[in-house]
Amino acid sequence: MAQTTLDLVGIGNAVVDMLTHTDDAFLVKNNLAKGAMTLVDADQAHKLYDEMGPAVEVSGGSASNTMAGFASLGGNGAFVGKVRNDQLGGIFSHDIQAAGVRYETPLATSGAPTARCLIFVTPDAQRTMQTYLGASVALGPDDINEELIASARVTYLEGYLWASDSGREAIIKAAKIAAGAGNKVSFTLSDAFLVDAFREDFLSFICDHVDILFANEVEITALVEAQDFDDSFQHTRRLCEIAALTRSEKGSVIAAGEEIHVIDAAPVEQVVDTTGAGDLYAAGFLYGYTRNRDLAACAHMGSLAAGEIISHFGARPETPLAGLLPPD
Amino acid sequence: MAQTTLDLVGIGNAVVDMLTHTDDAFLVKNNLAKGAMTLVDADQAHKLYDEMGPAVEVSGGSASNTMAGFASLGGNGAFVGKVRNDQLGGIFSHDIQAAGVRYETPLATSGAPTARCLIFVTPDAQRTMQTYLGASVALGPDDINEELIASARVTYLEGYLWASDSGREAIIKAAKIAAGAGNKVSFTLSDAFLVDAFREDFLSFICDHVDILFANEVEITALVEAQDFDDSFQHTRRLCEIAALTRSEKGSVIAAGEEIHVIDAAPVEQVVDTTGAGDLYAAGFLYGYTRNRDLAACAHMGSLAAGEIISHFGARPETPLAGLLPPD
Repeated sequence: MAQTTLDLVGIGNAVVDMLTHTDDAFLVKNNLAKGAMTLVDADQAHKLYDEMGPAVEVSGGSASNTMAGFASLGGNGAFVGKVRNDQLGGIFSHDIQAAGVRYETPLATSGAPTARCLIFVTPDAQRTMQTYLGASVALGPDDINEELIASARVTYLEGYLWASDSGREAIIKAAKIAAGAGNKVSFTLSDAFLVDAFREDFLSFICDHVDILFANEVEITALVEAQDFDDSFQHTRRLCEIAALTRSEKGSVIAAGEEIHVIDAAPVEQVVDTTGAGDLYAAGFLYGYTRNRDLAACAHMGSLAAGEIISHFGARPETPLAGLLPPD
Repeated sequence: MAQTTLDLVGIGNAVVDMLTHTDDAFLVKNNLAKGAMTLVDADQAHKLYDEMGPAVEVSGGSASNTMAGFASLGGNGAFVGKVRNDQLGGIFSHDIQAAGVRYETPLATSGAPTARCLIFVTPDAQRTMQTYLGASVALGPDDINEELIASARVTYLEGYLWASDSGREAIIKAAKIAAGAGNKVSFTLSDAFLVDAFREDFLSFICDHVDILFANEVEITALVEAQDFDDSFQHTRRLCEIAALTRSEKGSVIAAGEEIHVIDAAPVEQVVDTTGAGDLYAAGFLYGYTRNRDLAACAHMGSLAAGEIISHFGARPETPLAGLLPPD
């Protein structure tokens, strides 16, 4: 393995979340698929924003949430993702750097504005997301800095990027650089709609490039076209070196060849908003991994980080996550 | 009294809050006066933002918070204040209208960006505010629509506007229109630094124009240059028709000539963030007033609305305030 100076580099869409509380009737009225992430165009985003209640803005994005969580745990990380040189882009850039994450992706100076995700949180703490990708789809292979990727022990890639040609090229370039430097590649499936749209692409990308796969139950079942979770799990054991499968309140299952762990979720007094649960699970898991902890300990760290994030509104940590970790 | 169609119109600075949690050491290091609101220029705001931790953006502004609270209580209100046609201006405009408040002030299409207030919340729930007024100081007498002001039973004016010449002219124009239409004028002192800077102006404005005055203990003591609260209170009884003096956890004292009420604060399980307490007290009080409730009931409504706002992060209601009110 080459000399690495970073623990983790995350690559994903750079998004500002706009969160509001709403009820099921609003989702029905606006024809929103509860619990899902749906891509919308600028017009649809504008129309829906007009219907939306007063909102709170917080930096978001899946891999960027993971990186903020990773830094909060004490990890040394960088994020690669694209914003425009507008006010929301300024907010995103500020927040990720203020969270302790290195962020040097050049800003887009023309084209679509910074991406935003309208998030509707219902009383059952479910979140329904409508994302306008804006400037984030301008991320391309030219934004992948070879030196940066090669310097990171693990490169973490967000499946959401697969939705654009340039994002896909960026992911593949990064994966090749990481492998060439003798480092690890991690990938999250991000959403079942992506899996359905790009199943064969995903399977061959995973086989060719991925060492550590993250997926939730719905995503992994869609990927391997299985009947149930156990069936998914049996298929997944053969897909890559490590698979971490998350199951909400049922915890997670880790498969690494013959080594299997079934780990409980962290106890949470009250689930307030599940936004970011998967992102923070990955943060905790990869923190443990880059600290050379065993896989069960990695999964426990994932559970702890996810538990913190779902106990409040928003997908970035409110308290330093390092304080939640058990002593080494 | 002329025919009125609105209960309340609020006029003030249109501001987006950027809130973060911090500790006392940060305030000391950055030479910030704890608990105060300080005006900063664009450069100072940029420098401080660079030092600030990850933040959450929420629409703010004193009179605009009051109007959002007033609408949440069930009142029919409008807000007048200036933003630019930028992303933060879009967020402000969306949030105030989504809160149920009429908002039609023309956007600035050039000049400074939308105002922002960097808010540092310390573990003791105190907030320290650094405000860059930006486009909000472009509010002037031309933005005061005579028909709108004349249509509102009460016109509520924010002392913060006094800091600019055009804002002062706007306030005075609005007060004259309201009085000319036979409606009531309400004014909040906003901050002790304004009182110190404009004491004589404030006193003569109050004597000439104000029917309902809001002030906290520090502000009223500065205004009448008194020794203690009781001394301030004795002076204030003669200043205007109704004075509502707020005292944090000690509740409020209402003076209306010989009619005096001493009203307790609402019980609050945990004070999380005192941002907006005074703004929401005014919302509750004026809601009662426009519903022809007696002054003690108005003050109780003020306490209830303030109690809700300090029990969470941010200065706009998280739950419909109407649900907190006692039955008529």
